Amino acid sequence: MTVKKRAPASLAASRLKIVGVIRSTIKTRGDAPRQGSEGAPDAWLDVRPWAARALDGVAAGDELIVITWFHRARRDVLTVHPRGDTRNPLTGVFATRSPDRPNPLGLHPVIVRAIDGRRLLIGPIEAIDGTPVVDIKPVL
Amino acid sequence: MTVKKRAPASLAASRLKIVGVIRSTIKTRGDAPRQGSEGAPDAWLDVRPWAARALDGVAAGDELIVITWFHRARRDVLTVHPRGDTRNPLTGVFATRSPDRPNPLGLHPVIVRAIDGRRLLIGPIEAIDGTPVVDIKPVL
Repeated sequence: MTVKKRAPASLAASRLKIVGVIRSTIKTRGDAPRQGSEGAPDAWLDVRPWAARALDGVAAGDELIVITWFHRARRDVLTVHPRGDTRNPLTGVFATRSPDRPNPLGLHPVIVRAIDGRRLLIGPIEAIDGTPVVDIKPVL
Repeated sequence: MTVKKRAPASLAASRLKIVGVIRSTIKTRGDAPRQGSEGAPDAWLDVRPWAARALDGVAAGDELIVITWFHRARRDVLTVHPRGDTRNPLTGVFATRSPDRPNPLGLHPVIVRAIDGRRLLIGPIEAIDGTPVVDIKPVL
């Protein structure tokens, strides 16, 4: 077959806007559990003032998916030993949840514990303090 | 309280890499169902040659979350009428799955139907033809 080479029109516009930031007691990657379900704490999500209106309708008790940008991750990694254990065979990052990947996006299913203006208390979440948030979506 | 103004170190590096593209029979936003579960077809995900190794370990039958970049979406929208119906009250985009949002990332839970080299047949998926793919993750 013929593979179309057309580039997406949006390529030049694919720079992420940081809509908020995680404020957590987890300060380093070494301290972070591998998944939120593995003993992660609650944390605050501070939404930036310009994006606050996008929270209208979010309520305590909601299930959300928070999308983060793992700002400490490596973007040049295509294969990893799952869970950082060299006994696990090298595996493509698209078959793992490694934070090291071409676009280090993190998906975090969380519960909204409380809301204080444009700050959400959410959890459990394994993202480290200072992690940028790029999107927030309801669980369908 | 004092709000810290520290900017994430990664801000300058937050440009997305396009790791693949959706090849679908859906050609326009008007033709797309609102969710994959609402009658969407299967489609091909063509992974770019440089990222092909990141697929090692992905197999037919796997459940994946494909993350797309809605290249036709508006990024200046903070509130919408859900499902485009003006009878629904204006709601913050973080409480909806609107493609129009500050970072128009799409989350698509799909099944891998078949694999042909670096092309995955996946579905159901409502993304339109030409939609850039920015990440692929296994469902945990």
